[in-house]
Amino acid sequence: MERTRTVTWDDTSGSLEAAASMTGLEYMRAIAAGDLPAAPIAHLIGMVMEEIEEGVAVFSIEPAEYLYNPIGSVHGGVAATVLDSVMGCAIHTTLSQGAGYSTVELSVNYVRPITAETPRLFGRGLVVHAGRRLATAEARLSDADGRLYAHATTTCLVMKVGSGNPGG
Amino acid sequence: MERTRTVTWDDTSGSLEAAASMTGLEYMRAIAAGDLPAAPIAHLIGMVMEEIEEGVAVFSIEPAEYLYNPIGSVHGGVAATVLDSVMGCAIHTTLSQGAGYSTVELSVNYVRPITAETPRLFGRGLVVHAGRRLATAEARLSDADGRLYAHATTTCLVMKVGSGNPGG
Amino acid sequence: MERTRTVTWDDTSGSLEAAASMTGLEYMRAIAAGDLPAAPIAHLIGMVMEEIEEGVAVFSIEPAEYLYNPIGSVHGGVAATVLDSVMGCAIHTTLSQGAGYSTVELSVNYVRPITAETPRLFGRGLVVHAGRRLATAEARLSDADGRLYAHATTTCLVMKVGSGNPGG
Amino acid sequence: MERTRTVTWDDTSGSLEAAASMTGLEYMRAIAAGDLPAAPIAHLIGMVMEEIEEGVAVFSIEPAEYLYNPIGSVHGGVAATVLDSVMGCAIHTTLSQGAGYSTVELSVNYVRPITAETPRLFGRGLVVHAGRRLATAEARLSDADGRLYAHATTTCLVMKVGSGNPGG
Repeated sequence: MERTRTVTWDDTSGSLEAAASMTGLEYMRAIAAGDLPAAPIAHLIGMVMEEIEEGVAVFSIEPAEYLYNPIGSVHGGVAATVLDSVMGCAIHTTLSQGAGYSTVELSVNYVRPITAETPRLFGRGLVVHAGRRLATAEARLSDADGRLYAHATTTCLVMKVGSGNPGG
Repeated sequence: MERTRTVTWDDTSGSLEAAASMTGLEYMRAIAAGDLPAAPIAHLIGMVMEEIEEGVAVFSIEPAEYLYNPIGSVHGGVAATVLDSVMGCAIHTTLSQGAGYSTVELSVNYVRPITAETPRLFGRGLVVHAGRRLATAEARLSDADGRLYAHATTTCLVMKVGSGNPGG
Repeated sequence: MERTRTVTWDDTSGSLEAAASMTGLEYMRAIAAGDLPAAPIAHLIGMVMEEIEEGVAVFSIEPAEYLYNPIGSVHGGVAATVLDSVMGCAIHTTLSQGAGYSTVELSVNYVRPITAETPRLFGRGLVVHAGRRLATAEARLSDADGRLYAHATTTCLVMKVGSGNPGG
Repeated sequence: MERTRTVTWDDTSGSLEAAASMTGLEYMRAIAAGDLPAAPIAHLIGMVMEEIEEGVAVFSIEPAEYLYNPIGSVHGGVAATVLDSVMGCAIHTTLSQGAGYSTVELSVNYVRPITAETPRLFGRGLVVHAGRRLATAEARLSDADGRLYAHATTTCLVMKVGSGNPGG
């Protein structure tokens, strides 16, 4: 086994300009359709967008050794990244044109270890509350047989794009 | 700018056997010293072990475009991964020989966006409670000037190595 | 309006002995049926057990001024208490005889303020993962019209009763 | 032992008007000094304000049977309430005149059970990040000997008073 991985990604700096004239759902669908580039980190960790609907986002990932922590399993940050992605994207699909969001809090529960032998995993994010200034979502990470590995919730701040640092 | 990244990592399958004859602190120090291989994911995302003391772990990371989400900043999963790492490793340093741990819960607060222009970030994890079956830790992700970007807490289950799936 | 509240509660010290010969579901149903006393705090804050099924618990509460914080609304701790109750009790219903649990982590998202004008609220807790050592649950706090006020998740440690402090 | 508790509280409806002409620190100090009424829930659960400084709030509580859950210990919602209080009040002390806040997320870690035999507990809340729109805080619940029982973090949304439902 050769332990090397090479990834390439696209310049996404034009995406935000494109986003300014789209609703959140249109933006997410443009990425899903390949009309706008996928997130660089999706290439890095091998995360694939599977489904985008209003209030819903599904991504998948193949557990692999290059995602390992030092104690013999896939790093918990990988599940956190997939769950954060599907919840953020689910919230993004509910935003009107000119609105953006920023994650302010993420909580993850790990219920089963993930190793290179674990089958492909699917993160499914659902919006729970979509308010004018605040949105929350929940997500589960399961295999195709429905075995649950982790679940999560998030809180996002919703704002006009360009209104500055949400933590500021 | 060339948008490609190649990483290599080491076979870590021997590490757990090595770990069985070490305390947690010895194991973490062996990784820090390069006597045992770093975690594959550390190579993938460019995370570097900076400091290991009993109850403390510090890692650093260089924000970069290959870590980006689809909305123009470093993906929140990256901060989650660094914070999870330093908290897990801080807890690991408190474990006696033959003990292991598993993260059961991770909560992250994001207070400032991270972009490719953000300077190198340092995650510092500290053990809060080290019990026989349960350990908790907290961590902050800051730049060298002390500007805070995210903070986190975690809950880990402590167990004898080989006692099976902690979520089971 | 007279601003005074008097509550009485029952001695529950015999309940744990009674619990030792019951499954978790039997224990919860005995409380619901009034064969075992309700929790003292349920009397204190006016929380009522509405429904107990395997993996599910529903409690209700009437928002009122005596539950107020210093900024003109029902204290966030009240929603936390109801949500923690329904999740803990939902998990309790899945336990076999001789097993107990302890909450190690609770995360609450608040999406709408609660005042004395808010109608009666119903907390509904559902088990997400029921493992041998670890259980997780989720809950929502809504009014009868389905308006959501808060939601939550929890992590509980499952253990043999009498095996000591789970945090130890 | 008589199992009854009678509490009285004050009308706090005038407090918010008083608050409008004060900074957050002045408001918290007015409550601490008894110039403005304590929160009704503080009377209900026996919670006492011990210390208010800029960015810091300390409350104490005496563990007692009337705070019990159905499994023989003080309900986890009580620790959540004290921790939420000291974090919210710590954030409140950092607010300028005309600003308010709303808790959007609370995470609590429980590390040791609390019973009626547990000595008086002190919750200490500290601001971690005080931004224009977002603030975070952390807190610990310990006895006078420094034994830790629970710890927590929170995320609050900061806003102009009267700008409406933060979850909206």
